[in-house]
Amino acid sequence: MSEQILSYLKENREQLLRKLTDFLAIPSISTDSKHNEDVVRAGNFVVDYLNDIGFKNVKLHSTPGHPLVYGEWLEAEGAPTVLLYGHYDVQPADPLELWESEPFHPEVRNGKLYARGASDDKGQTFMHLAVFEAFMKTLGRLPINVKVCIEGEEEIGSKHLFGVLQEKLDQYRADFAIISDSGMVEAGQPTILYGLKGFTGLEVTVTGPDRDLHSGIYGGAVKNPAMALAHMIGSLKNEGEQVTVQGFYEGIEELSEGERRLMNETPGEEYTKTVGIEEVTPEVGYTAKEHTMARPTLEINGMFSGYQGEGTKTIIPSTATAKISCRLVPGQEPDRIQQLITDHLYNVAPKGVKVQVDPVPLFGRAYKIDPNHDLLQKAAQSYSEAFGKEAVFVRLGGSIPVVEMIDRLFHIPVVLLGFGTPEDNLHSPNESFPLESFDKGMEVLVNYYTKAAEKE
Amino acid sequence: MSEQILSYLKENREQLLRKLTDFLAIPSISTDSKHNEDVVRAGNFVVDYLNDIGFKNVKLHSTPGHPLVYGEWLEAEGAPTVLLYGHYDVQPADPLELWESEPFHPEVRNGKLYARGASDDKGQTFMHLAVFEAFMKTLGRLPINVKVCIEGEEEIGSKHLFGVLQEKLDQYRADFAIISDSGMVEAGQPTILYGLKGFTGLEVTVTGPDRDLHSGIYGGAVKNPAMALAHMIGSLKNEGEQVTVQGFYEGIEELSEGERRLMNETPGEEYTKTVGIEEVTPEVGYTAKEHTMARPTLEINGMFSGYQGEGTKTIIPSTATAKISCRLVPGQEPDRIQQLITDHLYNVAPKGVKVQVDPVPLFGRAYKIDPNHDLLQKAAQSYSEAFGKEAVFVRLGGSIPVVEMIDRLFHIPVVLLGFGTPEDNLHSPNESFPLESFDKGMEVLVNYYTKAAEKE
Repeated sequence: MSEQILSYLKENREQLLRKLTDFLAIPSISTDSKHNEDVVRAGNFVVDYLNDIGFKNVKLHSTPGHPLVYGEWLEAEGAPTVLLYGHYDVQPADPLELWESEPFHPEVRNGKLYARGASDDKGQTFMHLAVFEAFMKTLGRLPINVKVCIEGEEEIGSKHLFGVLQEKLDQYRADFAIISDSGMVEAGQPTILYGLKGFTGLEVTVTGPDRDLHSGIYGGAVKNPAMALAHMIGSLKNEGEQVTVQGFYEGIEELSEGERRLMNETPGEEYTKTVGIEEVTPEVGYTAKEHTMARPTLEINGMFSGYQGEGTKTIIPSTATAKISCRLVPGQEPDRIQQLITDHLYNVAPKGVKVQVDPVPLFGRAYKIDPNHDLLQKAAQSYSEAFGKEAVFVRLGGSIPVVEMIDRLFHIPVVLLGFGTPEDNLHSPNESFPLESFDKGMEVLVNYYTKAAEKE
Repeated sequence: MSEQILSYLKENREQLLRKLTDFLAIPSISTDSKHNEDVVRAGNFVVDYLNDIGFKNVKLHSTPGHPLVYGEWLEAEGAPTVLLYGHYDVQPADPLELWESEPFHPEVRNGKLYARGASDDKGQTFMHLAVFEAFMKTLGRLPINVKVCIEGEEEIGSKHLFGVLQEKLDQYRADFAIISDSGMVEAGQPTILYGLKGFTGLEVTVTGPDRDLHSGIYGGAVKNPAMALAHMIGSLKNEGEQVTVQGFYEGIEELSEGERRLMNETPGEEYTKTVGIEEVTPEVGYTAKEHTMARPTLEINGMFSGYQGEGTKTIIPSTATAKISCRLVPGQEPDRIQQLITDHLYNVAPKGVKVQVDPVPLFGRAYKIDPNHDLLQKAAQSYSEAFGKEAVFVRLGGSIPVVEMIDRLFHIPVVLLGFGTPEDNLHSPNESFPLESFDKGMEVLVNYYTKAAEKE
């Protein structure tokens, strides 16, 4: 049975890649309101595809933000029902000058497809749709009941998804969920994710004088907001990469020696080669693998103040701003952490400036599932059959707030079938996705949808 | 004799203001290479004016950067020779959206002329030229021999001025120098500057990964360059506004109680009203007046890293940059201070990032002259005759590197006749110059050129 479907995918590969290219060409940048219409276009692309395949009740469900796509095929009598989640929105593409080909003119080079969203997450979402197409075109049916939920706000924190799911609990209810919005520890190494980090963020703006001032005339009287900001955000973390915000680590479970060993044995990136740094700098007492997988982080995502142009402008800037975000682990409540950091920043604000902390409306709790769960073991088998290699089990430093959302709302397992690689440049210039991941990944999906349909 | 000249200025006021408007309309931004031609146009404006007045040997002297204007009128037999210095280049105008009228479309509102350069320094330079015109048109001569040196690189550190002066020492030699590129402590309060600060600057760039990275996947392994920069520049100064760079204060003379008293008695700005801050934050142990006038400063002029757009972008930025500059006092060598800060930054650079410190090719030693010098006393008289108010003697937090340059090359007194006011918004949006300063300032100049011509 699988053979037929895999043949279909092989024979229609060019046509499927062309279709994916059309999908990637839509600049569906959800954080930038200039692209609101593009986001809708990308949503409609998914709607049309589901209708073409033969899904029922396909809708572009509008929200106060960007719409989400629902669709279902529920004719696999006796089989379980899976909720497939994905997203069709993407990160901004800047800095544009660092792209070797246009971010929204997909191009294949060296066996990889280059485009914003190629890996995160249009490419991976598309693979499921292509596999559904293959099942329907060859067998006229899917092995399992499927509900599809593809949203357009993942990159801005899935703002309205929770409300929609909560309102339509029955419509979206399923036995388990599948998400392909992650990656493998290295290209070709099957990887089962059993943990994700949570997320919270905020923006802090320090305002001094009501305009930029001449540094000679006012220097010595007026507090410099950029220096004030440097002191304030510098106080959030020490040079041992420990977050120094009171209460930040409270409630976190210590890593067991066993889990530490597993993490450190997992193959990983050689950062000196993949991202060009001379050495890693994890939290004191932890390895880089332990810190990225299972310890919380606090990062400055952006920072700006005063003059940025060519040459010199001798001013005291009027304002200074930093964008800050955290990746959280089980035990850390996002809103509590956000509040702790906010309080810390107000507490350390020096005299002579005003401080404004704005919460980022984007959050998610961390998530963990038992790696021995039957659905995860089936996933591991599906991967190793396609890739010819045993799967490793890891936790991820990234956040997929929807995972925790689905867990909280439906109390169902969430299976993360990721096909990205560390070289994909997610959120960076020159995002790409290996065609090998595209081909073998679809094979994994064919296997998995078949295996998962079999009741234990 | 003065009466005639003052009448000329009064009768031709409108025509002179129109001419000044033409001068201000040229966007001669020296730091921005897009405006190179505008800088030359502004230089030629001065050349033409000097020729019209009857100056001799008028030239636009080219340099490897922007040109400078030379001209002379040396027919006042037996009288001393003065070197007039000014500059026709201006600061950038951004942020443009904060200007109430276009920076290069001068506009008069509420008795002030609004334009970039209205005060610093096209407006003040123009006043001298207008006064020369008045002398020549009424008396056919100047009371004193004049050499004029108006440059186009003041706002980028007078890069080539020193070389030109050094090469043509005899051409530029004079008995003393006059500069109008400063201000009065408050509008209408005659102010004699007897000290200026020096200047040095540098730019530091921290580079981490070779591109922006996903904060979830790499957070915990990769040092965040923005956080590293915050720690590094935060370590340059403590919250008591003391510079914590080893050796920074070495060689500085302590302020005498007498000088402190004078400074604190000088009228000054109410910063809560003029620049909207809630309180001043001078160096521990000093008042704001003492710090701005006579203690060195270190300021962040600009700082940038990562994502600055709307919304959130969850990255570890690849780089973070800060533009830093210092105002120096007598005893501090600019290149030594630059080196101390550079060494400090390299020393505190954390592991996992690369640090690059680039010196700013802009420097100047601090300058001080005896306030009892005959030429300063004559200046005080010229001011009080025009403004009807006794002059105060102050030191300035600003830097005019050319003052120290002239002092070093020619060993002659430099007299600073400033007419700006604290409300002029130098280097800021909505730069302006009061028409009262224009009118009374020209009266001061008529008085001063006459008095200075009289040998002691």
